[in-house]
Amino acid sequence: MQFRQIRSATLNIEYAGKRFLIDPMLDPKGAQPGYPATVNSHLDNPLVDLPCAIEEVIDVDAVIVTHTHPDHWDETARKRIPKDLLVFAQTPYDEWQIQLAGFRNTRVLDGATDFAGITLSKTPGQHGRGALLEGLYGQILGDVCGVVFRHPDEKTLYLAGDTVWYEGVAETLANYQPDVIILNSADARVLPDEPIIMGTEDVREVYRAAPGATLIASHMDAVNPGTLSRAALRRFLDDEGMTDRVLVPEDGERYTF
Amino acid sequence: MQFRQIRSATLNIEYAGKRFLIDPMLDPKGAQPGYPATVNSHLDNPLVDLPCAIEEVIDVDAVIVTHTHPDHWDETARKRIPKDLLVFAQTPYDEWQIQLAGFRNTRVLDGATDFAGITLSKTPGQHGRGALLEGLYGQILGDVCGVVFRHPDEKTLYLAGDTVWYEGVAETLANYQPDVIILNSADARVLPDEPIIMGTEDVREVYRAAPGATLIASHMDAVNPGTLSRAALRRFLDDEGMTDRVLVPEDGERYTF
Repeated sequence: MQFRQIRSATLNIEYAGKRFLIDPMLDPKGAQPGYPATVNSHLDNPLVDLPCAIEEVIDVDAVIVTHTHPDHWDETARKRIPKDLLVFAQTPYDEWQIQLAGFRNTRVLDGATDFAGITLSKTPGQHGRGALLEGLYGQILGDVCGVVFRHPDEKTLYLAGDTVWYEGVAETLANYQPDVIILNSADARVLPDEPIIMGTEDVREVYRAAPGATLIASHMDAVNPGTLSRAALRRFLDDEGMTDRVLVPEDGERYTF
Repeated sequence: MQFRQIRSATLNIEYAGKRFLIDPMLDPKGAQPGYPATVNSHLDNPLVDLPCAIEEVIDVDAVIVTHTHPDHWDETARKRIPKDLLVFAQTPYDEWQIQLAGFRNTRVLDGATDFAGITLSKTPGQHGRGALLEGLYGQILGDVCGVVFRHPDEKTLYLAGDTVWYEGVAETLANYQPDVIILNSADARVLPDEPIIMGTEDVREVYRAAPGATLIASHMDAVNPGTLSRAALRRFLDDEGMTDRVLVPEDGERYTF
């Protein structure tokens, strides 16, 4: 398989001969206002430009949208992705939202969705912790998912999506024993200061729970709520002796597994 | 007060010296694909152009968004309405969605919101009936509201919003005794054939329940799910002897009360 970090949570993944686009945020730098109720919301998003032409990013066989927050599914994605391209959604409601933008070739992921011999398994995620998931923030943070990719000729890949470390991630690691794990680990925070995706301690938990896996840190240095930079994560990994199995790609960087 | 039908559910209302923009759908004709899971979804929306320049429509003191479906709050509205203009939302979640587009001067309507001496009262609505409001359609149809406008120098105005006739509308009529009532009465339908706003029979119920009021039929001839045209509604009103108190404005038409 080939992994390419595009920007923020947006990735290109080639897996068993099929090309996937994950969580397309394709807006130009600064096109979205800072996200309300998050830290550093005075900064416009995305914080940086795409590392390559949009045409390259959208030249795929299918799109996977883990949820429809504007850093995972934005206006430029809705406009530029061909309307007949297959788009996988996490829920029927997300599928409807994607259809609203004119996409008609949509599918909802389940526990074992077959796509050209690849098994895509929707996995649970939790976009924050505890009381934060109740009330208004619960509505705003909403449903999220991850996806496990399996194929007889490939290593098992686990895209965790926008989630903190919690028992759902632990169970996914135990059930699927993934070889490669992509973690959204920018330690994004909503006000006053509540984490909604993984930070350093969450990465450490995954590192311990998946002792044979390679971890990839994604969603870094790209949108206003992130509080953990690549530089700070690299320092943490270095201090903790975790650099052997955790990769921190720059935008545009590729890995082959 | 002055009422001006703009297009679909979009209205300009001048009330007690303040100018309101209601449910701005400002996209050019055909900019939105037909709404999924609705009748006639092969038709692009809006079905017709605006009857006047956008600049005229958005030259107001405040905006009211009864809910965020794309025929009530669209991309052109998000882009063209000044970001510092006051926008009233029905719920904190809708307010957050509006803030996501960069609007920061937002307020959530309640039972008696004061705006420059005008009392705006949020009223209940039901965007369909019975089992339709459960499950996926329930999520899609979501929360909706209406608004009652009151001021010592003005007649009482009831904007019912996207709702069918049900006990919540009956109670609003009984509680507020409005003089002027705006009904979204295009009989819009979701598949297979379920009404989600008022049709002829709902209009008749309101006509009977508010014997002193003038009714205005809005949301007509503008988006794909509508099944009741102005022409058909006028025939019904004529046949039933209801033309005395029900107005069916064309796009751009004004009334003063």
